[in-house]
Amino acid sequence: MAKPTLLYACPTVPAAPWVAAFKTAMPDLELRVWPEIGDPAEIDYAFVWHPPLGLFPQLTALRAVFSLGAGVERLLDHAEIPAGMPLIRMVEPSLGADMAIYVTMQVLHYHRRMPEFARNQRQRAWVALDVPMARDRKVGILGYGQLGALCAERLSAFGFALSVWSRSPKDAAGLRVFTGRDRLEDFLAESEILVCLLPLTEDTSGILNAKAFAAMPPGSYLINVGRGPHVVEQDLLAALASGQIAHATLDVFAQEPLAEDHPFWRHDQVTVTPHVAARTQPQTAALMITDNIRRHRNGECLLNLVDRSLGY
Amino acid sequence: MAKPTLLYACPTVPAAPWVAAFKTAMPDLELRVWPEIGDPAEIDYAFVWHPPLGLFPQLTALRAVFSLGAGVERLLDHAEIPAGMPLIRMVEPSLGADMAIYVTMQVLHYHRRMPEFARNQRQRAWVALDVPMARDRKVGILGYGQLGALCAERLSAFGFALSVWSRSPKDAAGLRVFTGRDRLEDFLAESEILVCLLPLTEDTSGILNAKAFAAMPPGSYLINVGRGPHVVEQDLLAALASGQIAHATLDVFAQEPLAEDHPFWRHDQVTVTPHVAARTQPQTAALMITDNIRRHRNGECLLNLVDRSLGY
Ligand SMILES: NC(=O)c1ccc[n+]([C@@H]2O[C@H](COP(=O)([O-])OP(=O)(O)OC[C@H]3O[C@@H](n4cnc5c(N)ncnc54)[C@H](OP(=O)(O)O)[C@@H]3O)[C@@H](O)[C@H]2O)c1
Ligand SMILES: NC(=O)c1ccc[n+]([C@@H]2O[C@H](COP(=O)([O-])OP(=O)(O)OC[C@H]3O[C@@H](n4cnc5c(N)ncnc54)[C@H](OP(=O)(O)O)[C@@H]3O)[C@@H](O)[C@H]2O)c1
Repeated sequence: MAKPTLLYACPTVPAAPWVAAFKTAMPDLELRVWPEIGDPAEIDYAFVWHPPLGLFPQLTALRAVFSLGAGVERLLDHAEIPAGMPLIRMVEPSLGADMAIYVTMQVLHYHRRMPEFARNQRQRAWVALDVPMARDRKVGILGYGQLGALCAERLSAFGFALSVWSRSPKDAAGLRVFTGRDRLEDFLAESEILVCLLPLTEDTSGILNAKAFAAMPPGSYLINVGRGPHVVEQDLLAALASGQIAHATLDVFAQEPLAEDHPFWRHDQVTVTPHVAARTQPQTAALMITDNIRRHRNGECLLNLVDRSLGY
Repeated sequence: MAKPTLLYACPTVPAAPWVAAFKTAMPDLELRVWPEIGDPAEIDYAFVWHPPLGLFPQLTALRAVFSLGAGVERLLDHAEIPAGMPLIRMVEPSLGADMAIYVTMQVLHYHRRMPEFARNQRQRAWVALDVPMARDRKVGILGYGQLGALCAERLSAFGFALSVWSRSPKDAAGLRVFTGRDRLEDFLAESEILVCLLPLTEDTSGILNAKAFAAMPPGSYLINVGRGPHVVEQDLLAALASGQIAHATLDVFAQEPLAEDHPFWRHDQVTVTPHVAARTQPQTAALMITDNIRRHRNGECLLNLVDRSLGY
């Protein structure tokens, strides 16, 4: 069998660490780095993030596309990727480890009422605010996939009253599972601290809207690490103004980078981070991809394949 | 045997939840709540926090003193508690659970460079700051006792490069143990994020001083949840000014409440919380105390006894 050829086409991501990682993971892989793609008809696999327009029509022998990110909504919407092309999303341990750190950090921050302690500090007020025990603190996670499940595992160690929401039923000890649209409001009523770890699909776009906020307990907290369009921004601003949502942590936005004049930047109930909750690590990610390439060449099924009918 | 009599003498702490907790934990306990102490010669045990002066000389039949808090330096210094009186410090699961939450929260906060992200937010700057992987982040804990060990366990789950410092050697998988004064500077060199969970003793007072800060990697972070006098305040202010310490979280202070004109309040590299890192919970604490009273009455040894020669 000829050596497999993989095209690296992530123009916004420095290539050097990836080149090194792929070399270690699969020495006999031929790696080409866009824009030096050589003969496009020789390329078997593409590894992409914000891929350049005009590329895919040239890749006539392409057999599968690997995404650098876990969220693939833009690749599914990409005008030039054929509908039948296998698309593999990113699943790798560092991404999960990063996300579990970010989510745990912000859940603990809200659980311990740190925004209020910070306000008290500015006013030089020594006040021992009451904090419920972890088992009496309701934490909800929208999405119980690769990332949501790892976050739930870390948070369980602290003893929170955890609920999760997913499309399909789950068997999970020590937490409450709510399944499907019908149970969304019941789930939200159990979420004093709500974490969004959904993929962006037709079904989930705009899910964090006025109705959702109203279903949460008054004075709740929101942590959005899914995608910007999960949130209806005007509804969130209104919920913050009324106090229905006490504080929000937003890592993702409808428009990134966040526009300079966007009200989130200077909102004292909003923590903004620039889409850094979890990063794909070349070393571990290259292993997942090359393992999948080996499977594919052995005629085995590809892992972490996106289901186009579900949109994730 | 006559019913045991326990005196509750914590004037600064509301008694009601404790009365309920002791009733549940040991129905045949006779609980008296200061100042209604009845015949002082009938009191076998005292449960105290900031106990009133003049009390102890009256308690002629006293057999042991239980502390509401884990730190007993004030009770050891108390002029009226006889030197031979058994003193039991607070060890109970809620205290550890609370402390593990607080410490993990602030370690993750510093690991993820949240003070810098907050500064960037104020400047509307969208900058994806580099963050090391957890396994490359050096976290050190001063003290590997009841609380330090639980914090280490929680932090391990995130994969940090953990070191701990204690007086006596420990056998602990997955972390580096440094023992005794001789190894303090080596330990500090491994502490980009340093947590102080020591008891306050002659040996540990002032341990967080200019020399200690200089031994840490430049731009490190400090989390003091031990006792205020562990920190030499002027040295910390100097280390913050030079950037040797990038940021500090202080829950405990030499003088509490922190004086209104204290520079920590308005220091933008200092997070102040009002001694709330961990609270003793009546339900679980009452169980520990009544269990100990039962042991004592059966002639078994008392658990969690303070070693007066060590000061903790
Ligand atoms: N901010 C960042 O830095 C960052 C980094 C990485 C990823 N992300 C985001 O995180 C998302 C999740 O990643 P992942 O790897 O955990 O994805 P995943 O493994 O595919 O999990 C997705 C979860 O969402 C649930 N879900 C999807 N559609 C649903 C619907 N209509 N109703 C109810 N539940 C639904 C799924 O339910 P089932 O289990 O029933 O299928 C699953 O539990 C990504 O899509 C991406 O948007 C953000
Ligand atoms: N901020 C708050 O809300 C709060 C709440 C509770 C407690 N605290 C503080 O936390 C402290 C620790 O509580 P704990 O229950 O974990 O105490 P502990 O079980 O007695 O543990 C103390 C640890 O410190 C070590 N140590 C003591 N003196 C030392 C020395 N000279 N050199 C090196 N190591 C030394 C001990 O070493 P060995 O293991 O070798 O004995 C032990 O590992 C309390 O004393 C209190 O000051 C604060």
